[in-house]
Amino acid sequence: MTPSEQSTAYGILYTDQYQLTMAQLYFRAGLHEREVQFDHFFRSTPDYGSHQAGYCINAGLEWLLDWMATARFREEDLDFLRAQTSSAGERLFAEDFLAWLRCCGTLDGITLRAIPEGRVVHPNVPLTVVQGPLAMAQILETPLLNHLNYQTLIATKAARMHQSGRGQLLLEFGLRRAQERAANAGARAALIGGADFTSNVGISHVLGLPPKGTHAHSMVQLFMALGGSELDAFQAYADLYPDDCLLLVDTVDTLNSGVPNAIRVFEALRRKGHRPVGVRLDSGDLAYLSIETAKQLNAAGFDEASIVLSNQLDELVMMQIIAQIQVEAPRNGLDAEALIRRLVFGVGTRLITSGGDAALDGVYKLVAVRGEEPGTTVGANGWRPAIKLSETPAKVPNPGDKLVWRVYDTYGRAIADLLSLSDERPAEQDPLVFRHPTDHTAHRALPQTQISKIEPLLVDIVREGQRVGAVPALEELRARREADIERLYPGVCRLVNPHHYHVSLTQRLWDLKQELIAAAH
Amino acid sequence: MTPSEQSTAYGILYTDQYQLTMAQLYFRAGLHEREVQFDHFFRSTPDYGSHQAGYCINAGLEWLLDWMATARFREEDLDFLRAQTSSAGERLFAEDFLAWLRCCGTLDGITLRAIPEGRVVHPNVPLTVVQGPLAMAQILETPLLNHLNYQTLIATKAARMHQSGRGQLLLEFGLRRAQERAANAGARAALIGGADFTSNVGISHVLGLPPKGTHAHSMVQLFMALGGSELDAFQAYADLYPDDCLLLVDTVDTLNSGVPNAIRVFEALRRKGHRPVGVRLDSGDLAYLSIETAKQLNAAGFDEASIVLSNQLDELVMMQIIAQIQVEAPRNGLDAEALIRRLVFGVGTRLITSGGDAALDGVYKLVAVRGEEPGTTVGANGWRPAIKLSETPAKVPNPGDKLVWRVYDTYGRAIADLLSLSDERPAEQDPLVFRHPTDHTAHRALPQTQISKIEPLLVDIVREGQRVGAVPALEELRARREADIERLYPGVCRLVNPHHYHVSLTQRLWDLKQELIAAAH
Repeated sequence: MTPSEQSTAYGILYTDQYQLTMAQLYFRAGLHEREVQFDHFFRSTPDYGSHQAGYCINAGLEWLLDWMATARFREEDLDFLRAQTSSAGERLFAEDFLAWLRCCGTLDGITLRAIPEGRVVHPNVPLTVVQGPLAMAQILETPLLNHLNYQTLIATKAARMHQSGRGQLLLEFGLRRAQERAANAGARAALIGGADFTSNVGISHVLGLPPKGTHAHSMVQLFMALGGSELDAFQAYADLYPDDCLLLVDTVDTLNSGVPNAIRVFEALRRKGHRPVGVRLDSGDLAYLSIETAKQLNAAGFDEASIVLSNQLDELVMMQIIAQIQVEAPRNGLDAEALIRRLVFGVGTRLITSGGDAALDGVYKLVAVRGEEPGTTVGANGWRPAIKLSETPAKVPNPGDKLVWRVYDTYGRAIADLLSLSDERPAEQDPLVFRHPTDHTAHRALPQTQISKIEPLLVDIVREGQRVGAVPALEELRARREADIERLYPGVCRLVNPHHYHVSLTQRLWDLKQELIAAAH
Repeated sequence: MTPSEQSTAYGILYTDQYQLTMAQLYFRAGLHEREVQFDHFFRSTPDYGSHQAGYCINAGLEWLLDWMATARFREEDLDFLRAQTSSAGERLFAEDFLAWLRCCGTLDGITLRAIPEGRVVHPNVPLTVVQGPLAMAQILETPLLNHLNYQTLIATKAARMHQSGRGQLLLEFGLRRAQERAANAGARAALIGGADFTSNVGISHVLGLPPKGTHAHSMVQLFMALGGSELDAFQAYADLYPDDCLLLVDTVDTLNSGVPNAIRVFEALRRKGHRPVGVRLDSGDLAYLSIETAKQLNAAGFDEASIVLSNQLDELVMMQIIAQIQVEAPRNGLDAEALIRRLVFGVGTRLITSGGDAALDGVYKLVAVRGEEPGTTVGANGWRPAIKLSETPAKVPNPGDKLVWRVYDTYGRAIADLLSLSDERPAEQDPLVFRHPTDHTAHRALPQTQISKIEPLLVDIVREGQRVGAVPALEELRARREADIERLYPGVCRLVNPHHYHVSLTQRLWDLKQELIAAAH
């Protein structure tokens, strides 16, 4: 695409056709400026096949806000809509509707509350609550889901890798295998979720981090094609980057050529007062090669040199490598923990594409309409709750204008997320009743003495098109993620077969939901 | 990201850090303008777990060329590189290197040959051959792979769905579940590979297609929340779009509410001389519901109305739906083929993310260096072939400046892709020898009488930074895909357990490869 085509393709028309046909219908029915409320939530945590996530890390909001800040109907966009025809050859979009889009087709009327980026989030909890005029809130559905689904998916995968890698340095290397331009959002989400740095230069610049990377096999190969050797390539690299000398040692033969050559170069650096960084292993049995590499490095006095591992890593592969090292290192006379502490993980494809489950199932559901029609229930704040039936009970959204609370036990651990009506204050309810969202028989009551904190999760982000509060720095998002994971029970964090985290409704919300379901039937 | 940050993040710095550190090393060694050749190819077709692709559809090239046309080092990019520091706190990139990037860090020196977009392609065949100055050809690696891997992945998935859907209309609906901004490239690739239209409005505009879509559950739900009914919603839709009336019938109850209400609306449309388009089913047992819906529609005289199916479709689900209809339709007094011919498939998540295998393993390998160093082999055209060893023989790239040929048998079917040295003409070799790329014992010889055509696949695309030839229209890419798939044997196209398509080396290329491997050892 040319830059001009990109403005079209990523602008306000970055949405589904049916949002526009519905918007025109609402315009024609005089409903286009009716205030409505949509909840954005996902239905289930990613399931990677042999393992599944016990929690997610919320991400993507700031980039959605950036998109919203510039998206508007330009003349070229309206011209395109004007040119669309029905099957009978007539204009699909009428001029009065286009005139309304030109004057009022902005996101200036949108109010948005959200769970902040970086926080641990769970299925069926509203992560983003959109209030605003129906037509524009409807058009926003697709770009909102597009921006939020993917970053939450990747932040979650990164959190799992961070955990599986025992908090060792985690580098994001996925640009070349990413789903095209998702690479930048993916890198950002990975950095929120658990990666320390990325190899992606541009996005590092934007986010204010140094990009990471050293050299590829092609550098060694080029020197060899010109009649030189692996050692020549390493030497050239060390000469240029004496304080950042990390050498890729598997181009020829890891243990018989790469590591010995790296050590020769490191020894020369050491004599000149530089401290070599380490080596990278990109093929073969990474646990075995880590041990053998460590033995050679230690024998030469480079006990501190890092061993960077890459090649189709994911959280299970990393867990396996560490488990194998814990068994095998002592048999080789090495301290397993000391070896693990010098590992660095470089992860590409399976992080940036969320290997095993490449999409989060986020949805955007109408939950309330402002105003009073005869014969309908009006809730708090003048919001009338809306329901959508489904043959699958779990797919019936929780209706109405709601609040979201995180409940902590007396150990300070999060035990449930609780959805309430907007005028409820769960701290004032003793005992506090937790209803299962769909199972009529499953509920429990907890006395307030067993609760240490009830935290509201939704925060005002946009009020009538205006950003509320400051844009948080990356470090703040990471701190939220760390704090939230720390407050989960270990079973919820488990990489395989995690415990189910409870998401519950208050008794009053439960009652409202049942009443609406009964009325709809 | 703000628009300015996007210019940074998607510009020339949309690459890996190590490309820049290597580029500076080449600059320092005086090798940065040495002419080199890289081959881009993928190692294996996508493996979706329970099924795998027997071929791929090449896509992404034009968007790579668009990126290349504008990517250059701007002052802000250089400022960022200037600010990067080594671990010792010194500048990582020296001023003379940055000055070279400013003057010469463009892609104007790149020459590129490629297999055209839309064509069927196979593993280990060079799809893109890049020749140019070492430093810039190296920096190009990451963005090239980023642009080409994903579109080829998605075009391939779309071709499979097109095949599994028996060529019935295929609509791409994945924007909301796409990996963020990959949605546009994914929609384009889907349209090349087999989708007829997309719901994505912006990209439809850019590609000159009408976007497709009607209404969502939320429209019905809104009418109901305001005290109206599903029928009211359908009626409002039919009033506004009488010639494009496709109704989503599963918001309340497909067979007892949605379809009967749709038929009432359709009957009114028919009386006014309009032809209703049909209904969409988005949940439940889609084969069963298709049959029951067809019965109701037929009974009302709407035998031609389309039945659009959506909800987590992929090529296996589509195959299963059609298989079930073939068995069950006759038992219900319906003509199965007539029912299948009115089906339309709307595919979202599993197309736009390539469900089951979310990344193509494309790589970019140094295969030749221009010039003459003592003691090295020089091939045709002054290109000296380069080799990279690997403990996995299949990972040893095929060296040198090469040509790619597609060999057709006397039935006009493609039987093998053959890689040769650049001065070879396989049509002049009788018998023509096909060597397996790695297996020393596997080869065959075919007399020219059994060959109907030997087609060169690589085409000149860019010569020293300048585009050669016209940009093909989408229809041309689709025609290439159709023609190429038509010339495959059915076993290669099979959705599950496809036949292996042969990719072979000429005897001379095989000999060169063995010679280089021996010399490297």
